[in-house]
Amino acid sequence: MESLEQMETVAQHLEGSSVQALRGGVYKPRTSPYAFQGMGEAGLDVLAQVRSHYNMPVVTEVMSIAQIEAIATHVDMLQVGSRNMQNFDLLKALGQAGKPILLKRGLAATIEEFVMAAEYVVSHGNPDVVLCERGIRSFDNYTRNVLDLAAVVALKQITHLPVIVDPSHAVGKRELVAPLAKAAVACGADGLIIECHPEPEKSVSDARQALSLEDMVSLVDSLKPVALAVGRTISEIKGVGFKPTPICCVA
Amino acid sequence: MESLEQMETVAQHLEGSSVQALRGGVYKPRTSPYAFQGMGEAGLDVLAQVRSHYNMPVVTEVMSIAQIEAIATHVDMLQVGSRNMQNFDLLKALGQAGKPILLKRGLAATIEEFVMAAEYVVSHGNPDVVLCERGIRSFDNYTRNVLDLAAVVALKQITHLPVIVDPSHAVGKRELVAPLAKAAVACGADGLIIECHPEPEKSVSDARQALSLEDMVSLVDSLKPVALAVGRTISEIKGVGFKPTPICCVA
Amino acid sequence: MESLEQMETVAQHLEGSSVQALRGGVYKPRTSPYAFQGMGEAGLDVLAQVRSHYNMPVVTEVMSIAQIEAIATHVDMLQVGSRNMQNFDLLKALGQAGKPILLKRGLAATIEEFVMAAEYVVSHGNPDVVLCERGIRSFDNYTRNVLDLAAVVALKQITHLPVIVDPSHAVGKRELVAPLAKAAVACGADGLIIECHPEPEKSVSDARQALSLEDMVSLVDSLKPVALAVGRTISEIKGVGFKPTPICCVA
Amino acid sequence: MESLEQMETVAQHLEGSSVQALRGGVYKPRTSPYAFQGMGEAGLDVLAQVRSHYNMPVVTEVMSIAQIEAIATHVDMLQVGSRNMQNFDLLKALGQAGKPILLKRGLAATIEEFVMAAEYVVSHGNPDVVLCERGIRSFDNYTRNVLDLAAVVALKQITHLPVIVDPSHAVGKRELVAPLAKAAVACGADGLIIECHPEPEKSVSDARQALSLEDMVSLVDSLKPVALAVGRTISEIKGVGFKPTPICCVA
Repeated sequence: MESLEQMETVAQHLEGSSVQALRGGVYKPRTSPYAFQGMGEAGLDVLAQVRSHYNMPVVTEVMSIAQIEAIATHVDMLQVGSRNMQNFDLLKALGQAGKPILLKRGLAATIEEFVMAAEYVVSHGNPDVVLCERGIRSFDNYTRNVLDLAAVVALKQITHLPVIVDPSHAVGKRELVAPLAKAAVACGADGLIIECHPEPEKSVSDARQALSLEDMVSLVDSLKPVALAVGRTISEIKGVGFKPTPICCVA
Repeated sequence: MESLEQMETVAQHLEGSSVQALRGGVYKPRTSPYAFQGMGEAGLDVLAQVRSHYNMPVVTEVMSIAQIEAIATHVDMLQVGSRNMQNFDLLKALGQAGKPILLKRGLAATIEEFVMAAEYVVSHGNPDVVLCERGIRSFDNYTRNVLDLAAVVALKQITHLPVIVDPSHAVGKRELVAPLAKAAVACGADGLIIECHPEPEKSVSDARQALSLEDMVSLVDSLKPVALAVGRTISEIKGVGFKPTPICCVA
Repeated sequence: MESLEQMETVAQHLEGSSVQALRGGVYKPRTSPYAFQGMGEAGLDVLAQVRSHYNMPVVTEVMSIAQIEAIATHVDMLQVGSRNMQNFDLLKALGQAGKPILLKRGLAATIEEFVMAAEYVVSHGNPDVVLCERGIRSFDNYTRNVLDLAAVVALKQITHLPVIVDPSHAVGKRELVAPLAKAAVACGADGLIIECHPEPEKSVSDARQALSLEDMVSLVDSLKPVALAVGRTISEIKGVGFKPTPICCVA
Repeated sequence: MESLEQMETVAQHLEGSSVQALRGGVYKPRTSPYAFQGMGEAGLDVLAQVRSHYNMPVVTEVMSIAQIEAIATHVDMLQVGSRNMQNFDLLKALGQAGKPILLKRGLAATIEEFVMAAEYVVSHGNPDVVLCERGIRSFDNYTRNVLDLAAVVALKQITHLPVIVDPSHAVGKRELVAPLAKAAVACGADGLIIECHPEPEKSVSDARQALSLEDMVSLVDSLKPVALAVGRTISEIKGVGFKPTPICCVA
């Protein structure tokens, strides 16, 4: 998330589509302390404005206990990033956040560790945890990570939690995203998070992986027959206050 | 492959389905020299009988240059196993095998290495190479390997070769196979190899991953709407002499 | 760390050896919320008593910003565990902790990410960061992780920070620890953390990897000729208030 | 290996040192069929000349059953490369090679698979197998592979076979080689293979990892005190007909 204008453009373009919610990074976990760290509090305001203006739920990442209250006031869902999947004190505190939690799998977390991380949140009072497969570390740098769809199938079998997939961060190359989004739906995922941008090539971070808004809309449309083929539907429920309804699409 | 009776049972059960070919392991690459090494030459006879009796193409693994001629005489397609993906002398010799080659990805082969291994066969005279994604090594032993469907998408984009998927060996747990087979079709795979067995629990090797014959037929049927949803069809072309026709199913 | 008696036994046994400091887990990051979570605040008291009684520096893990002040008051060095290596808000806060930080490499962190994590602490005001290689995730479960001594060599070449090695957690099998400790010293490590226990088989966690106190003393003695062979010495500087002096041994 | 002149220069420079044997790649396994594939038969002649002229044992890689006889006639030890570690037909045939076998660990082979691969050679008649740890695939491309010295310790504990280490191929950066060679000796390795070249920067392959001949000699000298520190010695036994004597150094 870079500016209010940018988020307005995205929301305007996507509000007629099946995209159910918007994600915007306000606090960004960056490998280097010298890289762009996100818009911070000003970004929360942007999210709140777009949310109310377009009646569109928003999701953003929480990086520390101190941020929980402010973020939970403004957004519909709090994301825990991969690097914090086993930040157990944060997970415990999110048990009292009062909002659904989107928990991303750690960079090299086992399926058991992933489930147990969710259990930290649930056992501290918050049953609304959505698991997100986003690729695991491996040896081939053709893709940034390896998208592990077998984990999605396994998680659906061994937990009662919704499981969504983030193919954009998993592979880091936009030309691979659409086919993998279809694969995710075909194997039972309850939702998708797809990175998009009004002008992908100008994105401040992750330029190589974002879809254009046109490609985003067309991807979401192309998911509908795949969902039907496995006896499901892409959610058309819209509006603030949502619980992520399978199969949801988040931009 | 354990006996003629077993293969007859399989062929009889599957001949009315969309399964296009049968794979049977005659020479088995086993980690230990003391494990069951396959039926050997007697197995080739079994394959040849089933092939002619049911007019069903057969596929089997070749492990050394010395085996090529005998195997190529009896089967429709020669498989190179993961452990031999960079057995360059074998690959070169297969350039003259006169039959299509099914090349399985190495246990930890990069996408580039996989493509280059195929190039060893093609550049020595045999353009009919089918690439097979079968999972790569990773840190979580919940599944035996990690099925890398992004590799399937990438291989379709950077080569002209057919790409098929082996979810059974990738995950090693039968309850994960069907959803992943659908995912493979949804992301563009040209075929599937699925392990099945008349009595899965009694299988000599890999008992944990084989489907029953009933589940096999029902899986193949369930793939049809998924293929249609992405604008493709499961091949119904049958009979010895096949080139693997996308989207093919091999049992 | 399980009780005052246990820590007294350890300190008494090791105070005459070259072991320079003691580490005790007060807050334990555990995969499951239902596993033993450490002694908590009572444990800090135990550490403080042992520290003053034996004039022996102590190290313990900090898991959240809220714990920093209390821990920093009682111990000589604060450990950041692997799961928190990229808990950036914690790292920033530790820039103001006023005590040296022992930063463990993440489960699948690259060398660059590891260095950058240290940079979060240093750039926020605390130059005393010690890097700790403790094994990375890999495919073979013969050892728990793969000890990456090339990372030690690389880190010594590209940073000015001390680098120490934790072979116990890396491999998870006590019979592998001593030879790897020697290897660490031979390739230039500035210190070692070795897990030991008065009765290893009865350890509450990680029983399989702890050395007995006798083996610990004998290991530390055996490191001296290796250090000399590469032109270094095992530190004999003792007493509370230490900066970890290469080559230090922590139990 | 690029020419007779090159090998003469190497042999001349190293004959007075503790280097016990020379390795030269005659047949090179290359990822791409279009890359330099080695000198082939002409290279065997070069090896044979250098061997007899300098009374120095030589080692070279065998890639197929058809090459065994010719290679075994000219060299003192046959290397099986990582890509062929589970080329079971080659391993069986090497059971009758009549010369010691240097078996390199596969790119992602488990310790058990490595031991079992050796068992294929031993159970077919050849007890002289030397295991070589050469790094395994991992996620960080700072080093080419991750050198797994815990595997060396484990292999020494669970087999009776000599275990040597190839730090050059493991890390792919010459500045990391010497410290890791010392670490290998310190943890119990029975030998080392170090890549060197008269003009490292001009090497046809692997230029980034080869040591100069001066650095090679000085490295071997620096290993002696480390070996002594762990109660062992670098072998000074020289001459054709050798069995690799711990601790041996191969250039």
